[in-house]
Amino acid sequence: MLQNSLLKPESIAVIGASENQSKPGGKVIYNLISGGFKGKIYGVNPKAISIKGVDHISGIDLLPKVDLAILSIPAALCVNTVEKLAKAGTKGFIIYSAGFAEAGENGIELENQLIAIAEKYNAQIIGPNCIGIINGHYKGVFTTPVPHYYEEGCELISSSGATAVFIMEAAHAVGLKFSNIYSIGNAGQTGVEEILEHMDVTYDPKRSPKVKLLYLENIKNPFKFLKHASSLVRKGCHIAAIKSGYSEAGSRAASSHTGAIATSDTLIRALFKKAAIVYCNSREELINVAAVWQENKAIGKNVAIITHAGGSAVMLTDVLSSNGVKVPPIDEDKAQDLLKKLHPGSSVANPIDFLATGTADQLAEIIDFCEDLEEIDAMVVVFGSPGLFNVRDVYEVLHKKLKSCKKAIFPVLPSLINAGKEIQEFLDKGHVNFPDEVVLGKALASAANIDVPAYGKYDLAEMDYSRIRDIIAESKSGYLDTNIVRELLTAAGIKMVKEQEFYDEKSLENIQKTMAFPLVMKVLGPIHKTDVGGVSLNINSQEFLKKEFNRMMKISGAKGVLIQEMKKGEEFFAGAVKKGNFGHLVLCGMGGIFVEIIKDVANGLAPLSKREAEKMIKSLKTYPIIQGYRGRAGINEAAFADVIVRLASLVHLAPEIEEIDMNPLIGNEKELVVVDARIRVS
Amino acid sequence: MLQNSLLKPESIAVIGASENQSKPGGKVIYNLISGGFKGKIYGVNPKAISIKGVDHISGIDLLPKVDLAILSIPAALCVNTVEKLAKAGTKGFIIYSAGFAEAGENGIELENQLIAIAEKYNAQIIGPNCIGIINGHYKGVFTTPVPHYYEEGCELISSSGATAVFIMEAAHAVGLKFSNIYSIGNAGQTGVEEILEHMDVTYDPKRSPKVKLLYLENIKNPFKFLKHASSLVRKGCHIAAIKSGYSEAGSRAASSHTGAIATSDTLIRALFKKAAIVYCNSREELINVAAVWQENKAIGKNVAIITHAGGSAVMLTDVLSSNGVKVPPIDEDKAQDLLKKLHPGSSVANPIDFLATGTADQLAEIIDFCEDLEEIDAMVVVFGSPGLFNVRDVYEVLHKKLKSCKKAIFPVLPSLINAGKEIQEFLDKGHVNFPDEVVLGKALASAANIDVPAYGKYDLAEMDYSRIRDIIAESKSGYLDTNIVRELLTAAGIKMVKEQEFYDEKSLENIQKTMAFPLVMKVLGPIHKTDVGGVSLNINSQEFLKKEFNRMMKISGAKGVLIQEMKKGEEFFAGAVKKGNFGHLVLCGMGGIFVEIIKDVANGLAPLSKREAEKMIKSLKTYPIIQGYRGRAGINEAAFADVIVRLASLVHLAPEIEEIDMNPLIGNEKELVVVDARIRVS
Repeated sequence: MLQNSLLKPESIAVIGASENQSKPGGKVIYNLISGGFKGKIYGVNPKAISIKGVDHISGIDLLPKVDLAILSIPAALCVNTVEKLAKAGTKGFIIYSAGFAEAGENGIELENQLIAIAEKYNAQIIGPNCIGIINGHYKGVFTTPVPHYYEEGCELISSSGATAVFIMEAAHAVGLKFSNIYSIGNAGQTGVEEILEHMDVTYDPKRSPKVKLLYLENIKNPFKFLKHASSLVRKGCHIAAIKSGYSEAGSRAASSHTGAIATSDTLIRALFKKAAIVYCNSREELINVAAVWQENKAIGKNVAIITHAGGSAVMLTDVLSSNGVKVPPIDEDKAQDLLKKLHPGSSVANPIDFLATGTADQLAEIIDFCEDLEEIDAMVVVFGSPGLFNVRDVYEVLHKKLKSCKKAIFPVLPSLINAGKEIQEFLDKGHVNFPDEVVLGKALASAANIDVPAYGKYDLAEMDYSRIRDIIAESKSGYLDTNIVRELLTAAGIKMVKEQEFYDEKSLENIQKTMAFPLVMKVLGPIHKTDVGGVSLNINSQEFLKKEFNRMMKISGAKGVLIQEMKKGEEFFAGAVKKGNFGHLVLCGMGGIFVEIIKDVANGLAPLSKREAEKMIKSLKTYPIIQGYRGRAGINEAAFADVIVRLASLVHLAPEIEEIDMNPLIGNEKELVVVDARIRVS
Repeated sequence: MLQNSLLKPESIAVIGASENQSKPGGKVIYNLISGGFKGKIYGVNPKAISIKGVDHISGIDLLPKVDLAILSIPAALCVNTVEKLAKAGTKGFIIYSAGFAEAGENGIELENQLIAIAEKYNAQIIGPNCIGIINGHYKGVFTTPVPHYYEEGCELISSSGATAVFIMEAAHAVGLKFSNIYSIGNAGQTGVEEILEHMDVTYDPKRSPKVKLLYLENIKNPFKFLKHASSLVRKGCHIAAIKSGYSEAGSRAASSHTGAIATSDTLIRALFKKAAIVYCNSREELINVAAVWQENKAIGKNVAIITHAGGSAVMLTDVLSSNGVKVPPIDEDKAQDLLKKLHPGSSVANPIDFLATGTADQLAEIIDFCEDLEEIDAMVVVFGSPGLFNVRDVYEVLHKKLKSCKKAIFPVLPSLINAGKEIQEFLDKGHVNFPDEVVLGKALASAANIDVPAYGKYDLAEMDYSRIRDIIAESKSGYLDTNIVRELLTAAGIKMVKEQEFYDEKSLENIQKTMAFPLVMKVLGPIHKTDVGGVSLNINSQEFLKKEFNRMMKISGAKGVLIQEMKKGEEFFAGAVKKGNFGHLVLCGMGGIFVEIIKDVANGLAPLSKREAEKMIKSLKTYPIIQGYRGRAGINEAAFADVIVRLASLVHLAPEIEEIDMNPLIGNEKELVVVDARIRVS
């Protein structure tokens, strides 16, 4: 949660204030004043400064109590300053200064001191190493540009101040509007999690901004992040995020930046998937996805492309249809009346091409036609200019239709030179523009393909919880014994292959009562069983069983044998691994070559709902094998999903499990049975 | 080849001339005059028009002989006009008019008439349905912008006039320079192939432009395209291309556009791969790849990132390292002297982060350091502005270093607002800018990863050419008989499994002389052999062989048996399929599930060099299996490559082969042997 004195301060002290606007302590005062801040501004500097509207104070000891202090002083001076001000009742701090956690050990120590002070006095720090906050109340940044505040504009949270600036600059050209901007820097005390929490808890469906953009170099508390991000998306918000530093080299770069600890890309993708956050790789992607959402209309997966330029329509059709968005053919019969209104040679098949000579009136007709067409969810209008005549009338039609239509319309106005002025007028009316059709296409597909959040939508599988907790409580760190593994999986409702140890020939006699042929026999004692002839498959008779037992008992070191029922089917694997504060990442797929060579592995963060498990299975490249192909029987998908859900529930319930590996699982039409499993706890 | 009267006309007649600049026939005259065309301009229009520098002619019959005619009149009038002018000696035609092949049957007929006339009179037509030509001699387009002509600027060939305009508009912001621009429209007579041929044949290493950009909706003559594109790349040129209409829906869009026939994306990628053309999906990609080449310096695969803003460096590092370009760590020992010149907290590990407070002088030091560093091939400099102070001095350093350094330097100047003026000054000095680091990163990786052209660099495999031709000449259309298949593959030097037909028990007696156990026996006669017990594997003795023979001969319909040596190893497949004028696409991979479900298939256009075949094998996901993994023996890669090369040579030599499918091939450490093959000829 964010404090009111941070968000809506009535008084702000700039510590390290300056008359010089090329210094942060000077520029922020300029931004505060020109941004229309209505409260009191104090400028703290030992040297006299004179700025209209600012009270000069020569030292913090002389400062009256203020709501918010903005620090633009060397790192070494910050701790003392924050302590004094917090003690005097200041609750909000924005610390621009660098030289903290990003700068090595001394810096980490200084940052920890800051946090301790803030916690002691119940104060709140944004930063250090940030550019500040912009909201409807004040412009607390030392940078430009300071975007105009729109209540419905998107919110931005950024680990990097420079990246926040570059995003605002690039967004301007697209026409993207902003509301609140948070540069969190090292996020010493206030991270993306706290800001999302605040957005979530204070969410007002009528007034709160709907679009959130995140540029993150670290996620300290993934579950808090997940909880509030999911909640916001469920309330109707859209979130797009870059988590940079995903490559090994990139995370080296990130560590030298804001001291972020790299978290692997797979985990981040799993986290974003669970929260239904659109994963982005670049500022451009982030901005374009946000622009797709700016109108706040449903997007859908069936798009009409309306164009006067064929090439753009072809490229856009290619990118949409290869990314899961349809450009469905339109029945020409339905479009007969429309076709009559267009120039000869126009096509209404979708893309709807009304030719280079197409007019504003024709565009209006086409849009109206698509607005009423059941098979179309949204429209893209491509209209540039070869420089022959003015296209203002066309953009005016587009403007009106954007206002009146229920369906989303995305404008591709590529003529940044020939129609530069008209495009600017169009943007000034509050619209966005996508100058490159393929860049739009990718953003549109990303937005259209996003699922609903999975977080929170699960029931733990029905299983013997108390038994599981008992077993775990009694276990020592390290790999669990085979019989404990069996007990644990049984308690979790995961079926293991029937097996039993035998030490004398006589006890084999009643084996049919508990196990069914064919059987597998493995010698107990020797480690490399196969090498010494200690594994025998396909044992089909009592006679052969005894013969093999007697043979194996003669192997040097043999203590007895393990006999398992032999299951027929395909090999699968499922496992989970604890990934720090992200909890457990659950993995599954087909076994052997498919996991080792083809790397065909689906994943999800525990716990998992049945729906998530089903989606994991369906996402596998080997899914056609699971479905059954070329007349071969498939695998019991429901049973596979059940195993995955139980596995995810188990690790969620027993977080002491560091690693669990069920490999192989043998699956067939009827069931999935674990043949071998290893569990490591700590 | 392009005619001189088209490229360097001394006289131009505009048919359909106008005083009105909002009409193509008016705008082109304006462009010709303001573009400094030094020859004679005639304006043909029945109505009187008065334009300074233009001779009005009221009808084509009154026109003196001109080198070039630009037609801006209805399609129906073009045929007659071209005929008359061509007869009178005009050799060059640019036809803006639409209503030809893109408009259906009548249009196709009109276009064919045009082409026939041009061929009759040895004249050359650009278009129809195009915006014309821009070169150093004249600006024959009816659109704006008309980019300034730079001799070293990139050349553009576009199927779509509007897309050409949009490319020029978007390129402007990046600072990309142009030389010759060809809008080929329907490419009725003059296609991309002829223009590439012209560029190739007239190539002058000192004066010819090095970068070619293509936007294509159709490639009519892939081999001509391949020949000249490869040749240009070998001579030191760079080519990037979009071939749109690759999706099913996209090709529907393309057909309604310039009447292009869709060619599947796989084929286009294979074609581009062979010519070492960078495949692009969007105008943005095309422009950014071109901008990467604009300096015409070697790129390499080891990049230093020099930045004052951490976030951009992290994102750039991520995109480069996940696309095969390294951001290698720099040994801190080597950088000790440099580090002393930077502000405390700077990092020289690569990314080299000289902090938000970094100066122009420091940038110069860093660039000089990297220029001398052996492990670095190229640099990216990221420098924006938070709006505090002017960055002109930094961009001045960048300008000087771009001029003086041997290594390529790519500028990421993201502050389009805060440093908009300074960026424009930088561009005006002839440089490019990449405002988005990730967009640059992708373009840089595309350029860095391109291979040398493979086209022309192959020897046909040594094989019995005359026998192959004889067999093919004697064959009827359809599937070849098994024994013919065997003969053909044998002539091509492709090893088939040993097999022989047997009809009586006695002839089995000497089998050891020609075949080695274990053997496989298949009944001859019945179609569904497995269903009737007509396939027997692992026959290991003479005794069992006879027993099985006698059993099989009792199967209803049995005429005899086919006996094959049984090979052990992994299943592979290799095949080729004729794809119209692209010739044969050769495919290979592991068999069974890997091809059917995982779709792990490599491809290349025939003929193939040994190197291409090896690269195909290495590109397979299953390549680790081929290499041998976990102690298992691998497959004889050289033998696999040899089979692929022979297959490609065979179909190249015998283009009557429509389809050839060798499946399975059994491969092991020693050899690859075809077990079954089908060949269809026509």
